[in-house]
Amino acid sequence: MEERARLKADQERVEAALRECFRGREPRGDIYDAMEYSLLAGGKRIRPVLTLEVCRMCGGDERQALPFACAVEMVHTYSLIHDDLPCMDDDDLRRGKPTNHKIYGEATAVLAGDGLLTAAFETALEAETGLPAQRTVEAAACLARAAGARGMVGGQVLDMAAEGRAVSRYDVEQLQALKTGALLSAAAEMGCIVAGGTQEERNAVRRYAQKLGMAFQIRDDMLDVEGDEATLGKPVGSDQANEKTTFVSLLGIDECRALVEKLTEEAVAALAPFGAERSAFLRWLAEDLAGREN
Amino acid sequence: MEERARLKADQERVEAALRECFRGREPRGDIYDAMEYSLLAGGKRIRPVLTLEVCRMCGGDERQALPFACAVEMVHTYSLIHDDLPCMDDDDLRRGKPTNHKIYGEATAVLAGDGLLTAAFETALEAETGLPAQRTVEAAACLARAAGARGMVGGQVLDMAAEGRAVSRYDVEQLQALKTGALLSAAAEMGCIVAGGTQEERNAVRRYAQKLGMAFQIRDDMLDVEGDEATLGKPVGSDQANEKTTFVSLLGIDECRALVEKLTEEAVAALAPFGAERSAFLRWLAEDLAGREN
Repeated sequence: MEERARLKADQERVEAALRECFRGREPRGDIYDAMEYSLLAGGKRIRPVLTLEVCRMCGGDERQALPFACAVEMVHTYSLIHDDLPCMDDDDLRRGKPTNHKIYGEATAVLAGDGLLTAAFETALEAETGLPAQRTVEAAACLARAAGARGMVGGQVLDMAAEGRAVSRYDVEQLQALKTGALLSAAAEMGCIVAGGTQEERNAVRRYAQKLGMAFQIRDDMLDVEGDEATLGKPVGSDQANEKTTFVSLLGIDECRALVEKLTEEAVAALAPFGAERSAFLRWLAEDLAGREN
Repeated sequence: MEERARLKADQERVEAALRECFRGREPRGDIYDAMEYSLLAGGKRIRPVLTLEVCRMCGGDERQALPFACAVEMVHTYSLIHDDLPCMDDDDLRRGKPTNHKIYGEATAVLAGDGLLTAAFETALEAETGLPAQRTVEAAACLARAAGARGMVGGQVLDMAAEGRAVSRYDVEQLQALKTGALLSAAAEMGCIVAGGTQEERNAVRRYAQKLGMAFQIRDDMLDVEGDEATLGKPVGSDQANEKTTFVSLLGIDECRALVEKLTEEAVAALAPFGAERSAFLRWLAEDLAGREN
């Protein structure tokens, strides 16, 4: 349970830092409330945890990684707000709560997303932690690349294009690699950049995060079929109801289970250059996420 | 006419650089076409011209300013795409052409805006021009602050809130200072940062851009009343038709004319620390914009 306590401590550290980001900012009633409504709505905080833990594994100072951890969670949150919009996936609920536009209206939801995306770069670039400027530039550039049209935005474009038509396994893998994999990789890579890791180390943590991200997505698809609504905190069966092509609809649940196992092994193997001791937590995290029930 | 030729050369330089930003990027049919549709739709390119010219005035290398010039124009363009959305101002035309969502649909327009906002930071942070990393961080942070909820996004929030109700002169000034003034100031300040200008110089160019921005907005409101449709390239009288509170509706056309003159003088006065010779072009620019007919 030592690792689980450490995960919880990381998550709490991220929560506390996110709560500070817009404290005291005006005007509350309009934009900052909407931004915080989604930013502080919970979630696993996997991306910022990756940033902190990779930084530690690479021998860096996690205080210097914290602004980048907050930044990547802001980018993730903005993408959820925009993805939920009526013109996109038109979702009313997110983590059991009304989506941003349901509470604040569509215009404010668009602006809250825009505000969070911009605030991510403010947070990353304005941090005064003594990090060498060259590392700040590299880490923020890494985030921008992963968030943009060659990464997450590109993934959402593919997702919209896939709606209502038959897609292949290759399509779904491509889509997920961009839509969720790119930002997870950037989360990990930023931790390594902050720590001053080598190019080889950057490649290794990126590979770890890509494998972990794909396993995470497949597990997500599985839980939508075989999960427990009470444990998950959301209705199951929505993918099938929406006639969505998922890893489960393409491969069946057994092959998905095997694939999650294989990807998790590959994620763990990618950590070899760091040695067993330093990589213990991130190994545990990959295995824990593979077996998660929510 | 020497200054006008120089303005044209700057504009052409910016156009050429913007055309290069996404050259060869895939997939064309989806996101990059939508991003370029708006990015390359013309316009005065005042923000990037300010970045280049302030950099020159402060003794910097304009090649190092060019990525920031492109970045600020991307941020400006993203804001136009999102402002035009049905849930915002619901505009069908922009510079005489159908708005982004009219051509590409609402979902792609949201994503094209998101993609451009992100690409602005990619462009600023990935530039390899030999600029010291500390200046890259400061200039990109300046852009993020101006674009976000304390700047342009905050201005659009005020704009949406002002719709359909009486607003005071103070409200309109606040709104414009955030909605257009913040980004114009950042455009100028980034040029100064790239050039390694002093804090005093940064303050001076920011003041210049704020005054110029307010004058620009008032002139815009005037042209909507007394402009010539053919010269403007857009219909006049739209503010009155939309019952929009403008500087003209608040102050009348004569007081607006006097105010533009006063603000332009203040903009010019802000350039005093740079001396008459070095500031000649930016003085001319402020005066030219004050008297513009389109």
